[in-house]
Amino acid sequence: MEQDQTPSEKPGHPPAQAILHELRTAENSAAHLLPKLQSMKESNPHLTLLDVGAGSGTISVSFAKLIPDGHVTGIDLNPNILPRARAVAEMAGVKNIEFLQGTVYNLPFADETFDVTFCHQVLIHIGTPWDALREMLRVTKRGGIVAAREGDYETECVWPELPKLRCFHQLMAGLMSAGGGTPTAGRELLSWALKAGAERRQIELSYSTSSYHTTSERKVCSQGLCDQLRVGSLREKALKFGLGTENDFEEMAKAWEEWAKRDDACLAMLHGEILVQK
Amino acid sequence: MEQDQTPSEKPGHPPAQAILHELRTAENSAAHLLPKLQSMKESNPHLTLLDVGAGSGTISVSFAKLIPDGHVTGIDLNPNILPRARAVAEMAGVKNIEFLQGTVYNLPFADETFDVTFCHQVLIHIGTPWDALREMLRVTKRGGIVAAREGDYETECVWPELPKLRCFHQLMAGLMSAGGGTPTAGRELLSWALKAGAERRQIELSYSTSSYHTTSERKVCSQGLCDQLRVGSLREKALKFGLGTENDFEEMAKAWEEWAKRDDACLAMLHGEILVQK
Repeated sequence: MEQDQTPSEKPGHPPAQAILHELRTAENSAAHLLPKLQSMKESNPHLTLLDVGAGSGTISVSFAKLIPDGHVTGIDLNPNILPRARAVAEMAGVKNIEFLQGTVYNLPFADETFDVTFCHQVLIHIGTPWDALREMLRVTKRGGIVAAREGDYETECVWPELPKLRCFHQLMAGLMSAGGGTPTAGRELLSWALKAGAERRQIELSYSTSSYHTTSERKVCSQGLCDQLRVGSLREKALKFGLGTENDFEEMAKAWEEWAKRDDACLAMLHGEILVQK
Repeated sequence: MEQDQTPSEKPGHPPAQAILHELRTAENSAAHLLPKLQSMKESNPHLTLLDVGAGSGTISVSFAKLIPDGHVTGIDLNPNILPRARAVAEMAGVKNIEFLQGTVYNLPFADETFDVTFCHQVLIHIGTPWDALREMLRVTKRGGIVAAREGDYETECVWPELPKLRCFHQLMAGLMSAGGGTPTAGRELLSWALKAGAERRQIELSYSTSSYHTTSERKVCSQGLCDQLRVGSLREKALKFGLGTENDFEEMAKAWEEWAKRDDACLAMLHGEILVQK
């Protein structure tokens, strides 16, 4: 059992809950921002970008590669993930980056510090996401951009509809709600930006999808979800909130293993995306 | 009241149920096919394309523009929509196109007739979509492509969550099921292609979204849905299946009007997409 391996103990290896997170890059998770980032870079190569809730830092690192003469700051509430993020940057040979501990509700930066402030799958997990967006707007320069992409967990599609996969969906939605989050973040993102003080004309809204369906994607996805169910922080939280038993989680893990073996299997979800022009 | 205006009587004007359908183009509804279509056109400018369930023909017409030296055939089960489709082609000045009546279960074409066979939001409405895909594969040449895009109605996201909009969602899902369709078509599309006889290695699966959220999109969307609720065939079918009363439909229409006025309003859905290489 590896339940006691916290990320800070093994910075060269992803923790169980991060296997899927570490597939994320700016290209697959911030595609709506990239054309704007490119045009901003052309007029100012020394862009500064803040990635809020950077986690293992794979998105931050790919941003840093896209603005080699700029600088990326990744910030995360969890101090234990920072060594892993720094290792990810080091393995990629990326130097124009730093990772700090901090909360999105009180970012440790002066007003108008960054050209671009970004977050991905952060607002979905927190109680007052409009306060987070207001804080992101505060630390962004005039003429800069606040960008966010948040899943809409209620749109998650799984095929085939194995009953235990349905239970897993309910478990994850329950965990999100128990932690104060909003499973319907994707559809609410625009309303949160307005509540944070942005005007509608400043906001560009779009949608995109994430999915797993090729043999290798199904394998990685199943492995990541099984690890979350068998070891790691998700399991601990679910037990703490009384959202299931160890036996339930094992049955869900077996269902994911069965799912991965099927040619007709797929998993997809819709995400909401905003660009706010400050 | 315009309930008795059938499309065949007014080919220059869209019927109530077609206002939203007529926003569809190859660019917004077949984007997953376009790169492949472009490369096929480069090696053979005289491509033939079949658009199954062409409806008002706006997608067919935009395909015809993309392959000006090729030819597009649009086919639809409903003979009353054909005059409208022909009018749409004529208004666009498109000549390399024809529209015919026919069913996807028994396409009136010899084996291996078309380079590309396409359908959009057709399989979601029918009882045995795998039979339709088998028939589409039959009329497609070896080396050709069968392409489909089908919504997953269970992923529809609406914000704000006005109660009557929730009722509308249930009405639409009920109508789909009552007609023998599958509201979860998007997630099942891959499994249907396998059931039709395609092998997994022949199938490319992807996902995309459709959405309405700008002021003008909300206006058009609300108008289209209100027309469906107040006049036209959707209302007639819903009454016939006992899925609501005239008063219910009026309340839903008023909710869509309220929705359209709100800055924070949005409507989005996930679609499944396949390309099958024959």
